[in-house]
Amino acid sequence: MLTSLSPNAPAPPRINPLVGRLRSSAIRDMLAVTQRPDMLSLGGGMPANDLFPAQRLAEILVRVLDESCDLALQYGQTEGFAPLRSWVGGYESARCGRTVGGEQVLITSGSQQALDLVARTLCSPGEAIVFEEPGYLGALQALQASGGRLVPVPVDEDGLDVTELAGRLAAGLRPVAVYAVTSFQNPSGATLSDPRRRALAGLAERYGFLVIEDDPYAELYFGDAPHPPVRTYSDNVITLGSFSKTVAPGLRVGWVVLPPSLAPHVVRLKQAADLHASALGQVAVARLVEDTRWWRAHLDTLRAGYAERAAALTRALGESLAGRLRLNSPQGGMFLWGRFVDGTRAAKLLPLALERGVSFVAGEEFFTRPGGHDTLRLSYATNRPADLAEAARRLACAHAALGDLS
Amino acid sequence: MLTSLSPNAPAPPRINPLVGRLRSSAIRDMLAVTQRPDMLSLGGGMPANDLFPAQRLAEILVRVLDESCDLALQYGQTEGFAPLRSWVGGYESARCGRTVGGEQVLITSGSQQALDLVARTLCSPGEAIVFEEPGYLGALQALQASGGRLVPVPVDEDGLDVTELAGRLAAGLRPVAVYAVTSFQNPSGATLSDPRRRALAGLAERYGFLVIEDDPYAELYFGDAPHPPVRTYSDNVITLGSFSKTVAPGLRVGWVVLPPSLAPHVVRLKQAADLHASALGQVAVARLVEDTRWWRAHLDTLRAGYAERAAALTRALGESLAGRLRLNSPQGGMFLWGRFVDGTRAAKLLPLALERGVSFVAGEEFFTRPGGHDTLRLSYATNRPADLAEAARRLACAHAALGDLS
Repeated sequence: MLTSLSPNAPAPPRINPLVGRLRSSAIRDMLAVTQRPDMLSLGGGMPANDLFPAQRLAEILVRVLDESCDLALQYGQTEGFAPLRSWVGGYESARCGRTVGGEQVLITSGSQQALDLVARTLCSPGEAIVFEEPGYLGALQALQASGGRLVPVPVDEDGLDVTELAGRLAAGLRPVAVYAVTSFQNPSGATLSDPRRRALAGLAERYGFLVIEDDPYAELYFGDAPHPPVRTYSDNVITLGSFSKTVAPGLRVGWVVLPPSLAPHVVRLKQAADLHASALGQVAVARLVEDTRWWRAHLDTLRAGYAERAAALTRALGESLAGRLRLNSPQGGMFLWGRFVDGTRAAKLLPLALERGVSFVAGEEFFTRPGGHDTLRLSYATNRPADLAEAARRLACAHAALGDLS
Repeated sequence: MLTSLSPNAPAPPRINPLVGRLRSSAIRDMLAVTQRPDMLSLGGGMPANDLFPAQRLAEILVRVLDESCDLALQYGQTEGFAPLRSWVGGYESARCGRTVGGEQVLITSGSQQALDLVARTLCSPGEAIVFEEPGYLGALQALQASGGRLVPVPVDEDGLDVTELAGRLAAGLRPVAVYAVTSFQNPSGATLSDPRRRALAGLAERYGFLVIEDDPYAELYFGDAPHPPVRTYSDNVITLGSFSKTVAPGLRVGWVVLPPSLAPHVVRLKQAADLHASALGQVAVARLVEDTRWWRAHLDTLRAGYAERAAALTRALGESLAGRLRLNSPQGGMFLWGRFVDGTRAAKLLPLALERGVSFVAGEEFFTRPGGHDTLRLSYATNRPADLAEAARRLACAHAALGDLS
């Protein structure tokens, strides 16, 4: 019997087709390349290392591990660290002008996990779920893994095309949910207009679907705060939030606000999925945000920092690729969204760009169907302004080299 | 359109029946009760707060946040922090005497997540999966959530009854996997004997199933180290491990060693599920374990600490419930497993025990079918010896009160 596979060993294990069919995220696959020391990344939506509150976190962790290591190191409740749930409830209440109780809040291992748990809870295989296009790749993956049938609806400069959605609903579409990043959308940077927010809420109530309102960039605004969330206008909303962009993604702390009918199911699934989110991360974040004065100042620093970077990259690309690349003008978030007006296919440009030490994501990656070949997403969040200028220079070199090839 | 649900609002969302059917874990439900300050918990398998390396973790975190905050706070690779994956590869290689490369290792948000990911990858709905009984509740939940059809096989004092399993296989059972906690089993404390490990490996190769070898207690032995793992004798093994029992569960850092045919699928599913495990937790654990001298001394401290607690609770219960409760004699891990010889039903005893400030888990919770009513699981890990003596006294009071009632 001992060791070694028998020569006529049975076939390798069958893979659940829902999992076997998953595509890997182009962005996460690029992370290994992106971590090359000579690479300037405009690829992943990675916050700036220099804007992390590392020193403050260190101070908090030392105190927490000294005074309350039982909270930070022991098993915790699946729902999350109670003071953090309360804080999120207060935050969401203030945003939508209606009471969101801490008991509606589940702390998750990043808001990515909230997507996975919600999709698994709502979608039986084949269930229709509306996905905005272009849209967040991680949501696409989570929704696909749940077996949901993705129904793409386009995004324009005012966000999800709610008129198009209304037409599809009138024609008989009955989705279990509609997924949308409502502020400073990933990848397009668009923000859902206020009339569309109200209209989407109305459709949710009329047709009985849930809006999955994913809002990780809400606090990263450059001018005015975004419009009130869709939750303001309806209870048929699942709100996703995250500390990945405002504190640090490495902590894996996000949240979801759940309708009461859904909450116990999602909590039980989370119990099966990983018991609870990192207690150390949750306690650290709770201590950070409950110091209101520090927290406000920190958010102001982030807003100013990202606004400066957005402007720097926009300016540099406006010079280096003048007349060839048309850019959006983001009012917040982490992304420039560009469209080549000279017929350049972004996917063809990418290998030449990587060779020259700059990464981005080809826009076609954010579509469920072939499309967007002339588009690209450029994150200005990761690098300092001077490096963004250099990145733009490298991108222009790659573009010139592509021109020489064709 | 504004706010408020319309009076004839559509029905609440349909719940995926796989999720709707999930039972909550009795143990996790008890956590809220257990956190009452007057409660002595023999319930959850919670490590001792006083054995956490809190001071050392604080020192490491301060250094990490100062020197390499990009590693600890930024997005990381889905597969895990490379130095930690290498360390786990080396550890698992040493245990089974065969090379386990770091590239076979996926770092997960606790080994609970590994269970969830593996179950989802392997199980299409209705697929048979063998579950040892009594067995770990968290595994039961994860396997059920995947839609797998659980086939219970009993555990005796030598672990999973492999002879019974062989009979079922000979009779036509074709499971995709067999789940077993092979050392110091939860809840029974039993360790799978060496002949059974070899036999199980042989059956896996003959019938083409995977053994999911869950081994979180392997390092918590009191005398000799456990037998070599099942992986020693076959490649058809998925190994689950955890730092929850040896460092701290609040960090949510565990791992899974995957066969090459499975690894890319599980990694893609993890990407969709939560992107990656806490970077802060992973870097901290890596720094802890790579100091080999410190790590060995720490494990020795844990082993001595838990051996002392096991002895203390065994002694105290031997006095307070003499002749009424028969206990196993654990050689490691965190649990006493008891059987009342006077007909006491543990589930009836529990509310009386909670009233008196002591918790445990009724053995019947660990069965998929009605059974084990006279059994209970008592964790000696959480409390100090003096408190364990008090807990035994309270349990005896509850037992006496139950006798008075009946």
